[in-house]
Amino acid sequence: MTLALTRADALRADLVLALPEGTVLTAPESREAYRHDEAEWAPSALPAAVVRPTSAEQVRDVVRVCLEHGAPVVARGAGTGLSGGANAVEGCVVVSFERMDAIVEVNTLERYAVVQPGVVNDDLRAAVAGQGLWYPPDPASSPWSTIGGNVATNAGGVCCVKYGVTRDYVLELQVVTGTGELVRVGRRTAKGVAGYDLAGLLVGSEGTLGIVTEVTVRLRPARPAEHTVVGYFGSLVAAGEAVAAVAATGVVPSALELLDQHCLAAVDEWKNMGLRADAVAILLARVDAPGSAGEAEADAVLAAFESAGASWAARSDDPQDADALFSARRLAYPALERLGPVLTEDVCVPVGAVPAMLARVEEIGRRHDVLVATIAHAGDGNLHPLLITPPGDDAARERAQRAFAEIMTAALDLGGPVTGEHGVGLLKRDGLEAELDPVVTEMHRALRRALDPHGILNPGKVVA
Amino acid sequence: MTLALTRADALRADLVLALPEGTVLTAPESREAYRHDEAEWAPSALPAAVVRPTSAEQVRDVVRVCLEHGAPVVARGAGTGLSGGANAVEGCVVVSFERMDAIVEVNTLERYAVVQPGVVNDDLRAAVAGQGLWYPPDPASSPWSTIGGNVATNAGGVCCVKYGVTRDYVLELQVVTGTGELVRVGRRTAKGVAGYDLAGLLVGSEGTLGIVTEVTVRLRPARPAEHTVVGYFGSLVAAGEAVAAVAATGVVPSALELLDQHCLAAVDEWKNMGLRADAVAILLARVDAPGSAGEAEADAVLAAFESAGASWAARSDDPQDADALFSARRLAYPALERLGPVLTEDVCVPVGAVPAMLARVEEIGRRHDVLVATIAHAGDGNLHPLLITPPGDDAARERAQRAFAEIMTAALDLGGPVTGEHGVGLLKRDGLEAELDPVVTEMHRALRRALDPHGILNPGKVVA
Repeated sequence: MTLALTRADALRADLVLALPEGTVLTAPESREAYRHDEAEWAPSALPAAVVRPTSAEQVRDVVRVCLEHGAPVVARGAGTGLSGGANAVEGCVVVSFERMDAIVEVNTLERYAVVQPGVVNDDLRAAVAGQGLWYPPDPASSPWSTIGGNVATNAGGVCCVKYGVTRDYVLELQVVTGTGELVRVGRRTAKGVAGYDLAGLLVGSEGTLGIVTEVTVRLRPARPAEHTVVGYFGSLVAAGEAVAAVAATGVVPSALELLDQHCLAAVDEWKNMGLRADAVAILLARVDAPGSAGEAEADAVLAAFESAGASWAARSDDPQDADALFSARRLAYPALERLGPVLTEDVCVPVGAVPAMLARVEEIGRRHDVLVATIAHAGDGNLHPLLITPPGDDAARERAQRAFAEIMTAALDLGGPVTGEHGVGLLKRDGLEAELDPVVTEMHRALRRALDPHGILNPGKVVA
Repeated sequence: MTLALTRADALRADLVLALPEGTVLTAPESREAYRHDEAEWAPSALPAAVVRPTSAEQVRDVVRVCLEHGAPVVARGAGTGLSGGANAVEGCVVVSFERMDAIVEVNTLERYAVVQPGVVNDDLRAAVAGQGLWYPPDPASSPWSTIGGNVATNAGGVCCVKYGVTRDYVLELQVVTGTGELVRVGRRTAKGVAGYDLAGLLVGSEGTLGIVTEVTVRLRPARPAEHTVVGYFGSLVAAGEAVAAVAATGVVPSALELLDQHCLAAVDEWKNMGLRADAVAILLARVDAPGSAGEAEADAVLAAFESAGASWAARSDDPQDADALFSARRLAYPALERLGPVLTEDVCVPVGAVPAMLARVEEIGRRHDVLVATIAHAGDGNLHPLLITPPGDDAARERAQRAFAEIMTAALDLGGPVTGEHGVGLLKRDGLEAELDPVVTEMHRALRRALDPHGILNPGKVVA
């Protein structure tokens, strides 16, 4: 114990020496706040130190000190992750990017933005919108989560169904390598095949292959106004069938979200938004083709909802109404958290398997006696069953954990990955091992040893 | 010499034993045809053997035999590559995918196709078009090049400027690893973050990290008809300025191609298409927003051409006229090859730097007394200066090679990569080394050692 204390003290002392005053948090009560992300059910430890650098060079210096001490480095954005990717591990240094939140450049001609990792997603979106540009990736956490965290997890969101995920927008990264070097990978031009796609590999690697210190993201021109279509359904499975019906129309919606009755009730109780609670599930669709083509898309989605047996469906051309519905979707997670600890699932299945997967989720919840509320990016088959347990009920918590594992197995059975957008972190490590061929797991380990030869980058995450 | 022969003979004997009759080509005259791709100026060797497998399992067996013999394996699609990525190396086995050309599945609901690597790009496009779907990547070689080769080089094309490159469409790959295992990486669902992006890493790795035996590509719904806008310009630089003017409008064209007078003259002389030769450069633009939005986009591009000083510009709403112009673009390369050996450049610069880069290319050609004809995917800054030399003129060839190297340096100066879409292969190896930080080059080597621990996968390509 004395030895462990001594090692942590020596690490802290070297960090304090290497970095400007105020950069290193050493007090236990300060460090405690950086123990875990939103995956509080996953294991975590009190970090040995927390650093809040203000430059890429400082991050490099932190990694060099950690290399000398053999100490793990855990990078952390806003801590909104749901898989434990930013959970601290024994003896680690947490690198928090909260003070690296500058938008360095917005280039309107080349349509890219250069940002520090700590920039909040919504802040970037607002900054570029002011210049007629658009950064599409929009995770539900966008008011809080940072671009660095979005890059680490390859975050998705509502408009991914048409516009893709974070990786599709990352052009160039500045990175501190596992050997303590500061380098750039990728490019800022529209195209380029000079060497391996290291930038793409780092996106979604959850801090295990390098620590991102600057991100250049591709932007799109601002897009036309969206049309919203809402459908109410008498069962989750009917809503799932409507999703497949939309896909069959050939229209690619710019959003196609599902909320079940539990989500609607929780949001309404919290925010008193006057949401109709007489449906088992609702679908919220948006389309954004310009002009009359957008009208035609909205009509096609409406017809698909009706053909799949919607109890009520309509176009909502009042932007305020439409925004309220999408706010409800965004508020579903915090609203449900008010009911008790939530274990958040994140699986993806083929669009045609959405009805079957929703039926499996219902059955699993019933069998394990766990309240399951489901939100879904239904249009791309990405489901978030939320397992809610009464506060302090350990038995319910264990049942929820069993249900969580079974939902992953069900997704694998139906041809999907065990995580659609939240990442592997700690909570999905067993699922990943079940999903991958052992040879492919070994390829992951080999890549990791190649880029992190000293094993200091977020050890224990993604693959053991 | 006797020893070398003996080793090659033993390798051939083991291949013949491991594979069905007719799969292994051993006669020198048969092997000669597989010596190099279209980069005939790059070094090549007579392969020790050529295999033409009909299944992924046979490819795996080839790799296993090569592992036993320590023999290099060079994968080859149609051989239309322009950087030497498929050039045979001393003692190697060339794996030609010409007999693995089946379209295994087209899934209209999930919008993907599963194909063997030897499927020709245009054949895939035609097959899915019959089902209302679209595979966007359209390299100029699309009538001949194969999906396997497109994946190996992360091929681009005309519509990339709006729709992205091959990597953006690859969902899942079946691969034979450097250790002779047959695995799948990636996924078929719309989203997924389960583990590292191995599929994306393999795309563009030119057969150095694994050998692709099956590809699942994402498809889009068929799109609306395009509008074509043509502009004639009195100088290359004026055409380059029109490209930047289009970018500034906020319209994302579905094609924005540049051809200079040498290309136009060569195509017209060959095909007698009646192309106007009274311009130094022409721009061919297409836009594809639906309905009246498409009309507005076409008008905006036309206005941009005119504002940049086009000597003549017009919308071409006759599809036959428009197709003729785009055929001319596609025919430019073979038309120029009729004039003498062509060394094909492929660099990318920021869109705003296109005028400057075109000026640099002209200056370099003049200084080295080399005829340079330029085709460009101008809208994404991807330029193909074609260096044409008189047949049998070795001095001209050396001058062209010096110009080739200087064009790469100019692209690096202007912030671009040394290859936009053709790949590194052999011709761009020095350029890649100049482009990358030595630490990043070492990361490439580390990744390569991780996935090809025995060094048998296309050795000497990409990075030495």
